[in-house]
Formats: sequence, structure tokens, C-alpha cells
Amino acid sequence: MAPGARTTALGQAAWPHPADFAAPPTRADLDRWDEADRAARPARVARLRARMEEAGVDAYFGVRREHMRYLTGFALAETEVASAGDSGKFLITAEESICLADSRYTIQASREAPEARVFDCYRALADRWPDLVAEAGVRRVAVEAGFVSHATWERLAAAAPAVELVPVDGWVEADRQTKEPEELERVAAACAVADRALASLLPSIRPGVTEAELALDLEWRMRTGGAEALAFDVACLAGAEAALPHGSPGARPVTPGAVLLFDFGAQVAGYRSDMTRTLFVGDPTERDRAVFELVAASQRAAIGALEAGLAVSRHGAPLPSGQSIDAVSREVIEADGRWPVFGHGLGHGIGLATHELPTLGPRAAETPLPSPTVFSIEPGIYLEGEIGVRIEDLAVLDAAAGRLERLTRFPSGVVIVGT
Amino acid sequence: MAPGARTTALGQAAWPHPADFAAPPTRADLDRWDEADRAARPARVARLRARMEEAGVDAYFGVRREHMRYLTGFALAETEVASAGDSGKFLITAEESICLADSRYTIQASREAPEARVFDCYRALADRWPDLVAEAGVRRVAVEAGFVSHATWERLAAAAPAVELVPVDGWVEADRQTKEPEELERVAAACAVADRALASLLPSIRPGVTEAELALDLEWRMRTGGAEALAFDVACLAGAEAALPHGSPGARPVTPGAVLLFDFGAQVAGYRSDMTRTLFVGDPTERDRAVFELVAASQRAAIGALEAGLAVSRHGAPLPSGQSIDAVSREVIEADGRWPVFGHGLGHGIGLATHELPTLGPRAAETPLPSPTVFSIEPGIYLEGEIGVRIEDLAVLDAAAGRLERLTRFPSGVVIVGT
Repeated sequence: MAPGARTTALGQAAWPHPADFAAPPTRADLDRWDEADRAARPARVARLRARMEEAGVDAYFGVRREHMRYLTGFALAETEVASAGDSGKFLITAEESICLADSRYTIQASREAPEARVFDCYRALADRWPDLVAEAGVRRVAVEAGFVSHATWERLAAAAPAVELVPVDGWVEADRQTKEPEELERVAAACAVADRALASLLPSIRPGVTEAELALDLEWRMRTGGAEALAFDVACLAGAEAALPHGSPGARPVTPGAVLLFDFGAQVAGYRSDMTRTLFVGDPTERDRAVFELVAASQRAAIGALEAGLAVSRHGAPLPSGQSIDAVSREVIEADGRWPVFGHGLGHGIGLATHELPTLGPRAAETPLPSPTVFSIEPGIYLEGEIGVRIEDLAVLDAAAGRLERLTRFPSGVVIVGT
Repeated sequence: MAPGARTTALGQAAWPHPADFAAPPTRADLDRWDEADRAARPARVARLRARMEEAGVDAYFGVRREHMRYLTGFALAETEVASAGDSGKFLITAEESICLADSRYTIQASREAPEARVFDCYRALADRWPDLVAEAGVRRVAVEAGFVSHATWERLAAAAPAVELVPVDGWVEADRQTKEPEELERVAAACAVADRALASLLPSIRPGVTEAELALDLEWRMRTGGAEALAFDVACLAGAEAALPHGSPGARPVTPGAVLLFDFGAQVAGYRSDMTRTLFVGDPTERDRAVFELVAASQRAAIGALEAGLAVSRHGAPLPSGQSIDAVSREVIEADGRWPVFGHGLGHGIGLATHELPTLGPRAAETPLPSPTVFSIEPGIYLEGEIGVRIEDLAVLDAAAGRLERLTRFPSGVVIVGT
């Protein structure tokens, strides 16, 4: 089939054109988002300071790259963190934001985090810690204990014994789950990059091409089509491999009569997307189509429950919990009874990280979902050794605006390739 | 200039052909290396057990992916670690090796680590810890304290109060710096992939092409030319940007009369390469050529000192230290006196990680270098706002075999492009 040609056989979605999706972000978009971040940072930091005050600490010591970007603007790529040493750690006090950076990063930190003070530190955090806390004038410091190593913690405690370290967890994570409009725009832009890449890949999916070749091809299309990076390594799994909830693309070829599962995402201006499509190589068997339709029904049920929850929230009811939406989706597959329900959660928040709050799953909080927020809805059915089907879309939930919007625009029905 | 054409002007290295370098590894190579790892693991684990016994601990709890692969065979990609949860942590006792894995990873762990027992654990390490240590029958556990978070440490200590956690650092790192023959083969293969990729890129380097375009092009050539992954993100820096010891490729175009610095590496069967070449776009000025020649002389001096050290080691003298080789290299630039000496270290070991032991630098150990080992030799001169030149090669040092061999084969002299 020629690139971009569309089929409209009964019960089968037409192939999308790459041009069906939003164009890659322009330089003007990128500048506007930078400016929005700069304008939003004072409020983000103010919310953290309110929490600090409530907890009786006079500083917050953070080490996660997402938090640093969110609160200060200094942005390290995920792939840089391992070699960055102490660069990228930061201290927020009631008066100032301080970014740690060694000589490799001082220019970048000053440019990206203009409101912050840059504190020079090269792989000797414990040696510099007494100066850092003394200059900042702090005595009781909240520390991201889930992300600071035990050895570092002990060294900091010993280096400035008069400064109390208070282990904290989830403060900035909780705040980051509600999204500003320009954060949602970037997630949507990352979705469009991924949608367009898959649409442009469809004509290349032919029997004999391997998973690894397609994964690399799809990656290339994203990275030359507006993505500054991948959200995560592309998964491309053929046939029974698609039944592995986690799997890496290998030398397995595309085979007629089997499914082909793509789980992938792009990163645009720091923000990420995540989508899964399970394509059919040639006409599916009746069983395989039924599996697909049941997964689609499970996803529709979750979306329906969210819409219903949104409607009643207009009359003052709380939004549904991530646990209840997961249960609705799962119930569709359980009630059908033919195949096992997915073992993973229904969905996860997304933004500067691929997986963040809120969680939609059996063990998720029973509290109402936050708003505005964005998360994945990704039910699946996995028949080991036979077939796996998952459909994953991102959706924005905004109670104040009465908005539930699917950001992933690639058709979610049956798509047949390779014929 | 046509692809692959060679110029041999006075004082200028000929352009290499991609075919000058070793071909990508074959399936047979990959199988042979897998087999070599399997054969080597018992000795690797035995060395760790000897150290455990010496320290009076009855288990070693590790979390670094490099160590897990080295000791058990279970291989997570660096990009997977963030989302792997507790999968990939491991416990070595006097009797067995145990890999932690959740359902996403159990098949992979059993296949890659056939000598290990797989222990099911899904994001609830502290809940499973009492079972893990009870089943293993251990009471005093060495823990990689520099890589386990403080929060996890506290939870493990509370979950099994009778089990003592002993913070340890550098045990496996020290062992991994000496390399087996098949580890060195893989580093050499990764060097060849990178050499070949840059050789094939040369004709594409034309004025107007941007750093980011060239970086992506070079990445693509490596990943379709035998690399399973990059060793790290490609740095491509034009003109004055090359003076930043750390910099990201941007929209800056290649400009006649400026340098173009590439710092990049490939990963082959888990093992990595790392090389830097500073190319001239058009004929260099006299000053720029002099800067280049001085960096090259600094590198030659380091290699000469290693050769001399190797020669005297045959008569029983210890090998030189990483600190002394760094000093020799630095002295060449200081003695010349025209330009500042590089602020970073001269080199670093490489293998499963891009940066590992041994270190060659002013603060490196004064003890003799290990053997057999492999490390980078990468002096540089950086004139802020004007030019940066760095030349980086990997070299194997093997005292028993009397071998000092440059694994990076791309010419290290002046190479002129874009004319």
C-alpha cells in the first residue's frame, strides 16, 4: 500500500496521514513555554515554601532532576544524571533557590535558572555542605530521602552535625501532578509527535522487517520530527512477544497473522507522551479481533466513568479516585470472563517524568483524582505464548473546565498493516 | 569531496575509509562473548566471596546494574533502571546468587542469569526483605551504601532488625577495573563501531549543517552500524562551544575556519567506547594548529610514559600511577606556557560503565595502575570564547603481555573537513 493510503474496510480504522496531527513545535512555541515556566516558578516555589513552613523546616534539599527543572529551570537530560555528579542538586530556603553545579554546568545553570544562585560543587558535596547550609542560614533541612544515597546522608549528617536532616517524601511529586496549561500543551505536543511518527511508519511495516528495525525507525521519525528525546526506549513486540508486559525489541520479524505492539513516547520541551498501539499484520482471526475489541471496550468504560465523574463533579461531588476508574475498566474484562484481566495498573500520570502521580490502579489512593491533570488509560489482555493487546492513550482531566480530552489522536480501533 | 576521498596535504592526516576499521560484531561474536561471561562469572563471584569472608559479612546486597550484569548476567539497559523498581537488585551469599525481579522481568532474569535464583519482588523491597534474608540464611549483609537510598536503608533496617547492614563502597568497582580478554574485545569492537561511524560521517560535514543534525546523524550511523546503544549522548560542538568541557549540541552551524569537536561512544554487548576528535572546518589558522599540535604532544607524552612504565615493569618495577601519567601529560602544556592546561582529569577506565576505575588525574590514587585494564587518554586545551581542542583515545594496558595498545584507530592528527 502506498504511503498514506487509507483503507476503510468494515470494522477497520482508516490509516491516518501524518498530516492529520499537529505540526512539530516551532521556535516560538519553545520560547513561549520557556517564558511560561519562568512565570510559573514563583508560585511553584511558594507552594513548596508553604509546605516547608507547615513542617517546620527552613530548607528543602532536592536531588531529582524533574524537581530541579520544575522549581529552578535548570534542566539536565535524564541521560546526563549519572555523570553529572552533584550538579543538579538544589536547596530551596525561605529566601532563595540555590542550584549546585560544577564548572561543566555553571554557564548552563545561570542561563536556565536565572532566579537561582549557583553554588559551585564538584563531587564533594559533604565537604561543601557546611558552607552551603551556613551561607543559606538554615538549621533544619527536609531531604528527598528516597533519592539521596545512604552514604551521602551519613556524610552530610557528619559534616554539619548541628543541621538536622528531615527525611521527606512526595512533596514536590504531589504538587507536580496538577498541571499548568502550558505543561498540558507540551504533553499534547509530545503526543502529536508520536502520533505522526507512527502514522508515517505504517507503510514500512512489512512481513520480514524485524522488531528492532521498526523500533529504531520509529525512534528516528520522532527524533527528526520534533522530539528532543524519547520518553523511554521504544518497545516493538511481534506476535506472542506482545504478551510480555515488558519486553525489548529483538530480531523477531513481522509475521502475517500476528499482532505488532508499539509502546513509545516523545519528549518535547521537557514534557513527555506515552502511547501503545497494537496493530494487526494482515486480517486478524476472530479470536484476536475479539480480544482487541474487549480491550477497547475496557478503555471506553474507563473513559465513560471519567466522563460521568466529571459530570457529577459539576454539582459538587468529588472526582472519582484512580482506584475506582481502574476497577471499572478491569470489571469489563472480568465480566466477559473469556480472558484474564491485565496484571498492571490502568494508568499513570505523566509530565516531566514518564511515570508520575496520579496512579490509576488497584493499589492507588482512594482519594479523588487531582485536577487539572493528565494520565494514561492503558488496559490490556495478555495470553502467554499467543497474543498480547494493549491500547494506551493519554487524557487530560480538568474539572473546572469540564474537560476530559484524549491527547493521543492516532485511531484506537483495529488498524491492519503489512498487506 | 566525494565520500571516502582522501587528501594527503602536508601535515594533514588522510581521511579514513569506514572499511579501514573492524566490521561490526557478528552473531557468532555475540554468542562467544555471552559464553565467555558465563564461564567467567564463577571466578568473579568467588573474588567477591573472598572479600565478604575477609570483611566478616555473609552476603552482599547490590543495586548497581553494572554489578548485576557482571556478577549474575542479568542485564538491564541504563535507560531501564529508572522504571525497573527493585528488579535488578541482587544478593550474593556464600552459597548462591539471587536476582530480584518482578513479573515483567522474571523470564529475562532466568534466561540471562541461569546460575541465579530469581526472587519475586515488586516495588515492596522492605516487605520482602525479611523473607529474602531468612531464605538466604544471612545475618550480616554488606550493602552498596552509595547507591541505596537513605529511605530504603532505613526501611530495610526496620524490617529485619536482627540483620545487620554494613555500608560498603567500591568492592566490585575495584574488581571490575581489571579486564578479561573478552571484555577488552568488546571495548575494542565498540571503538571500531565509533571509528567507522565518524569516518562515514566526514563527507556530510559541510558549512551550514548544525551540531544537532550532525550529532543525530553520527548516532544513527553507530546504531545502525553495530552499536546496541550509545555509551552516552553524542557531543558535537562547533567553534567556541568546543571550549566548554561539557556542552550539548544545538542549532549552531558548522562554520569555515572553526573547529568541530565530537565526543562520543558506542555500546557493544554491554561494553562501551569513548573517543573525542576535534576536526578543522577548512584550513586551520597557525594558532589553532599550534593548539592542536600541543594537545597531541601532551597525549603522546602520556603514551610515552606508559610505554616506559611498561618497559621497566618487565624488570619488576611497579606500573606507574594514574596520577603520575596525568602529571606527565599536563607538564607538556604547562612547560609550553602559551595556553592553560585542561581542568579535567587525563582519563578514566571504561567497560560496562562509561566512567569507571582506574582514574588518571591529579587526585587519582598514587598506587600503580591495574593490569590488564583499559582507559581513556584525553588531554585538552580550552580557550573560552575562542576554541577548544581535545583528543581522546582508549588504550589497553597489559603488563603481563607487555602490551600498550591504542583501541581507537581513527587518525589522531589534523583532519580537515567541509572544504
